[in-house]
Amino acid sequence: MTPILSTLQPDFAKVFDRIVDARRESDSEVAGQVADILQTVKLRGDAALSDYTQRFDGYTLADDGDWLITRERCEQAYHELAPDLRDALELAAARIRAYHEAQLPENRDYVDAAGVRLGAIWRPVDAAGLYVPGGRAAYPSSLLMNAIPARVAGVERLVVVTPTPKGQSNPMVLAAAHIAGVDEIWRVGGAQAVGALAYGTKRIRPVDVITGPGNAWVAEAKRQLYGVVGIDMVAGPSEILVIADGKNDPDWIAADLLSQAEHDPTSQSILITDDAGFARQVEDCIDLQITQLSTAKTARASWDAHGVMIVVNDLLAEAPALANRLAAEHVEIAVDDPEPYLKAIRHAGSIFLGRMTPEAVGDYVAGPNHVLPTGRRARFSSGLSVLDFMKRTSFLGLDAASFAAIGPAAATLAHAEGLPAHAKSVELRIK
Amino acid sequence: MTPILSTLQPDFAKVFDRIVDARRESDSEVAGQVADILQTVKLRGDAALSDYTQRFDGYTLADDGDWLITRERCEQAYHELAPDLRDALELAAARIRAYHEAQLPENRDYVDAAGVRLGAIWRPVDAAGLYVPGGRAAYPSSLLMNAIPARVAGVERLVVVTPTPKGQSNPMVLAAAHIAGVDEIWRVGGAQAVGALAYGTKRIRPVDVITGPGNAWVAEAKRQLYGVVGIDMVAGPSEILVIADGKNDPDWIAADLLSQAEHDPTSQSILITDDAGFARQVEDCIDLQITQLSTAKTARASWDAHGVMIVVNDLLAEAPALANRLAAEHVEIAVDDPEPYLKAIRHAGSIFLGRMTPEAVGDYVAGPNHVLPTGRRARFSSGLSVLDFMKRTSFLGLDAASFAAIGPAAATLAHAEGLPAHAKSVELRIK
Repeated sequence: MTPILSTLQPDFAKVFDRIVDARRESDSEVAGQVADILQTVKLRGDAALSDYTQRFDGYTLADDGDWLITRERCEQAYHELAPDLRDALELAAARIRAYHEAQLPENRDYVDAAGVRLGAIWRPVDAAGLYVPGGRAAYPSSLLMNAIPARVAGVERLVVVTPTPKGQSNPMVLAAAHIAGVDEIWRVGGAQAVGALAYGTKRIRPVDVITGPGNAWVAEAKRQLYGVVGIDMVAGPSEILVIADGKNDPDWIAADLLSQAEHDPTSQSILITDDAGFARQVEDCIDLQITQLSTAKTARASWDAHGVMIVVNDLLAEAPALANRLAAEHVEIAVDDPEPYLKAIRHAGSIFLGRMTPEAVGDYVAGPNHVLPTGRRARFSSGLSVLDFMKRTSFLGLDAASFAAIGPAAATLAHAEGLPAHAKSVELRIK
Repeated sequence: MTPILSTLQPDFAKVFDRIVDARRESDSEVAGQVADILQTVKLRGDAALSDYTQRFDGYTLADDGDWLITRERCEQAYHELAPDLRDALELAAARIRAYHEAQLPENRDYVDAAGVRLGAIWRPVDAAGLYVPGGRAAYPSSLLMNAIPARVAGVERLVVVTPTPKGQSNPMVLAAAHIAGVDEIWRVGGAQAVGALAYGTKRIRPVDVITGPGNAWVAEAKRQLYGVVGIDMVAGPSEILVIADGKNDPDWIAADLLSQAEHDPTSQSILITDDAGFARQVEDCIDLQITQLSTAKTARASWDAHGVMIVVNDLLAEAPALANRLAAEHVEIAVDDPEPYLKAIRHAGSIFLGRMTPEAVGDYVAGPNHVLPTGRRARFSSGLSVLDFMKRTSFLGLDAASFAAIGPAAATLAHAEGLPAHAKSVELRIK
């Protein structure tokens, strides 16, 4: 049974510190293995991919046709989907597209008071690679959330890598690839696939940015290749913080907490409420609901190990400060007026406003990205967006007059910094 | 003597590939040492800082006063600056501030056609740490370029770490810290200082983002701490590409190329021109100018090892494609009409338009940031900006009507992905 903490208990600060600092990410010994795999892929290319795929996925990459899943196959998977599922994917795609289109940054190009032309141009990267896990965690929603922002950014070449253990692929994922307009799907996975995307092989041309979820090997490969390519923020176990007053239906809040817990035993669900009786009701509802879930084992393990319930005296006065310490991936605010909470919570991946906004609508169809910073990284990082697939080039242009106005100061600073060629490049033009 | 390549020579493609792929960054063995230092700082905190600072900087951190450079000391350094230097720093700061203020992103908050409230809020991180090298590479301009965007972003606590070998600090850097409004300056450097900023110690509270240049140890420490904190892109050796027709003064272009070469022996300067005679003149001017530089030894080493001159047949038809392959940090376009080049060059850190825009004005006073992606990273990353000190929280809010419109699709997808608690959190609210 998950203990119900109170902000009034004398050791609350200490207990809460422990919750904030707890690391649910495993310090695994994968770094060395990943470094080996990446080096091998860099040196041996496709032959290395073929070897690893045989070993890890039991799948043979021999003929040309073994390597790629064709666009025709994706289209076929799309047409074979149950109509309600196809409609749901299309609705999700359309709403994700609309939200991300509004993210497109504006270029700047202006002349300032000194007569200096200044500006910045945002452009997409040439090619993006998306990692799509095989097996249980192969989620079509995840493909949409990664691929559509890349497409909206204007990326010309969109490449998916995905392991197909014993040749099996997930038709929903293929259908999602069709909807998103993925250009290539390679049947390789693991660190070796990430290495191939970064370094390129004879078959697979390199990409500029790699995003998408994966296991510890995939995450470590991305981390090690950061700088060779751009990557999305390294993701850890998922988490939800639900801030709820006692006027909620405890069954709804229990389901919201479980929707995070069912992802993984390392997931974390936290409830903050101002009503101890409500917390006990939620706990009861969790115990009941959990028995009905096909994901019961995972949800139970997560809730027992990492579930937290905190009762505060004044919800608005106390919950935002606790939320800012936790900097959670998802924050639900299940109260009548969530507005002051939205203002006061500075650190969160995504915020779900009001009683009718369970996290699951955001995971699938609302439009904002579900790839969000975990493990308190919302303090400094953001959810996936079109910006992850773009980069900005600044530019400036001076004429004789504006050069006369600001050039001399540049020469002064260059001399002071001991960089005479910098100074000379300015002074020659002053004369 | 630097050979003059021609795009007409039969092996040009191969030679250019080698230039593009050449790695000027050393594969140093610092990773293990840095990992040790970071672990030690994490465990032993200030005591570890004290030990390392004694060992590496010959400076004793004993009394409270030994640790911090006070704001009063910075203010004093500011007042003691030569007036022309102070004015130049103030001009630079004002222009950097103005350019970065225009970068501030807009929040979004709207209700879409389905009645779903959607939006995103940009907020600054709570605290930013800036690494400022000691010794030769202690540049006040670099402090301004890192600190001002953080301040403009709204960061409340701005912390500098800088080594003070044998107690020596650079008064210009302190004056720049005064201008930028830095809150704390700690006299620690190296990987240990980066570790202290990320993990926090008893004296130094942790920060959320760490930026700023440093040696191989500092860069590796930032790389290893990526994810614990946000960092700016890992920087490699600097580079300039100058695209110039034969109508330029060869002395000006020679100075521009040398202004990059004088930074470091690993820096790279590349000239692309359509006039072979002009290229030879530039080479002669370089040979002459270099003898007059106090930085001659560095500039000579860089130009001899990494300098490149390429003669093309048609400048506008050929140079942008070569520039896109190089994806250089700085690109100067010294022609009468740089506009078509600006359109065609997709990958560059910053572009300097026209004959009167030497890179040095951008390094100091133009306004755009001089912290730019190196080593072909302009393919996927951008110069430092206010966004590096901010993060975005998405939000969404549904009411009964909008929930009825899109909720069922979320439940359909949740079931299809095998996540029943996700589905239940939606279905309970539909009933």
